[in-house]
Amino acid sequence: MPDLYDVAAIGNAIVDVIAPATDAFLADNRLDKGGMMLVDAAQSAALYARMAAGVETSGGSAANTIAGLASFGGKVAFMGKVADDKLGEVFTHDMRAGGALFENAPLVGGPATAACMINVTPDGQRTMSTYLGASVALTDDDIDQAVVEAARIVYLEGYLFDAEAARRAFAKAAGFAHGAGRMIALTLSDGFVVERHRGGLMGFIETQVDLLFANETELCALFETDDFDAAAALLRPHVKLAAVTRGAAGSVIVSPQGVIAVAAEPVEKVVDTTGAGDQYAAGFMFGLSRGLPLAQCGRLASLAAAEVISHYGPRPQVSLKDFAASKGYL
Amino acid sequence: MPDLYDVAAIGNAIVDVIAPATDAFLADNRLDKGGMMLVDAAQSAALYARMAAGVETSGGSAANTIAGLASFGGKVAFMGKVADDKLGEVFTHDMRAGGALFENAPLVGGPATAACMINVTPDGQRTMSTYLGASVALTDDDIDQAVVEAARIVYLEGYLFDAEAARRAFAKAAGFAHGAGRMIALTLSDGFVVERHRGGLMGFIETQVDLLFANETELCALFETDDFDAAAALLRPHVKLAAVTRGAAGSVIVSPQGVIAVAAEPVEKVVDTTGAGDQYAAGFMFGLSRGLPLAQCGRLASLAAAEVISHYGPRPQVSLKDFAASKGYL
Repeated sequence: MPDLYDVAAIGNAIVDVIAPATDAFLADNRLDKGGMMLVDAAQSAALYARMAAGVETSGGSAANTIAGLASFGGKVAFMGKVADDKLGEVFTHDMRAGGALFENAPLVGGPATAACMINVTPDGQRTMSTYLGASVALTDDDIDQAVVEAARIVYLEGYLFDAEAARRAFAKAAGFAHGAGRMIALTLSDGFVVERHRGGLMGFIETQVDLLFANETELCALFETDDFDAAAALLRPHVKLAAVTRGAAGSVIVSPQGVIAVAAEPVEKVVDTTGAGDQYAAGFMFGLSRGLPLAQCGRLASLAAAEVISHYGPRPQVSLKDFAASKGYL
Repeated sequence: MPDLYDVAAIGNAIVDVIAPATDAFLADNRLDKGGMMLVDAAQSAALYARMAAGVETSGGSAANTIAGLASFGGKVAFMGKVADDKLGEVFTHDMRAGGALFENAPLVGGPATAACMINVTPDGQRTMSTYLGASVALTDDDIDQAVVEAARIVYLEGYLFDAEAARRAFAKAAGFAHGAGRMIALTLSDGFVVERHRGGLMGFIETQVDLLFANETELCALFETDDFDAAAALLRPHVKLAAVTRGAAGSVIVSPQGVIAVAAEPVEKVVDTTGAGDQYAAGFMFGLSRGLPLAQCGRLASLAAAEVISHYGPRPQVSLKDFAASKGYL
């Protein structure tokens, strides 16, 4: 198969509602700061009614990564499920406008398009409450074999481990990808996702995953330890390649050749950390898909994360290609 | 009547879609840079399909002003028309979350909630294409007499001069306001609106308006001249008080006591000029409603405009009350 895509991703198709919040608001609404919790339609409506005025923007972890890759100039495809409603139109428009292939038919007659309410505290930390809606209607029927086989990297969003049908979709995509000699990347997404599915995730990582993305919390959750260095050492025999983010402390790339520490790109003011991990993955995979050295992949990753945390919203507001070039990183 | 509100505004209830664009995109789509054009549903859909990925945020000129006043700590009310759809919910939520009274029933079975597609070029200039949808269904039945009579200032959005029913609503509101000894403020909104309704606007200004907001282009359109100083001199006999904005050149306040020049507040980088005039009006009317000297009203106006043009979107992203206090303006 020709390399039609640098990255094809499978993830939740979500529109974000981003609003400023105080720490007291998080406490009053029993929101776990920095985390992601799932809410049903009624909880979603009740929380929205209490939130501050917000901004709506297409989100979804892997979808944000795809938008970042497109901003670097990458060729990308996305698989996920929206409903045939206004937010579904918005999500679809934003994916395609960024240049991504996105062809899954919207869900008709079911739940609404997924929405994630993101409360951002003055320290820039984001706390997410997600109504999954139509996004969990993704099944293995939505996996396009031709697209998967034509992508250098197939990127899977760990959040989807919560839905059985999506886990089957992952298995199907992994089969197609490895059958075509492609690389499978996975992001662990969230510490609670890891706790809920530790065994299943570990099995999937060992048998299917060529590149693992995680943050410190998620990696520690995977190995049930509070010691980051211990977790990193435990990870090494399980994966070929991993990139683990540590917020302002930068990230580490774990590979057969050893461990590379990558500094965080300096940011004048952290406005909203939403999408930091998603854009890190975008920069890293863009570099990897172009055959760049791992240290350079890490620099591109850090740069993309720095751009996105300097403003509200989970997707880049500048051309990451131009930004990276201006810094001499590309 | 007690002063329950600092400002009650009547305007279009619009949700904005904001996306980056090139000057070539404006030319290809025959968009008049810096202006506002009206589009129908089909034109709106066609333009949206060609636009870049965007961000959705509640907008509408007078509604943005109300959001700015709320951010200063003002007590505010808004009258306008949404449809009973997703964007209508978003607009309503954002108005109420900011603390504004907004009680008009959504339109059922008619056109969708109004949407304004805003293409922002790299110089920060915004070019707007507005689908008015449900917003033009506003009639004089939507004017709440008790609210108008309890507001220090009743603020009217000039864009509504395009709709006959809304002009009747303005007349009704002006009658209530003056009957209760209140002040009527009007913004001219747009040069083409002025050209379409010059006679009607002039008559309304002379008979009803106590405070006029305009930018340079609109004021020149009103008096059919290219000479700003000539236009300002022509304006003086017609209004008690006016504030005319001139972009980076600041603004001038025209009053019976003479003309006060107000410097623009410095901005590090102009990202998106959307909402600059709206927030200028917010700062000015907040000062006026608190009985502050005109020069101080102008400083608050310039500060609010500076905040909003330093980021994407037409509404403040910080507390204008705190921002003004930090600058020593309040």
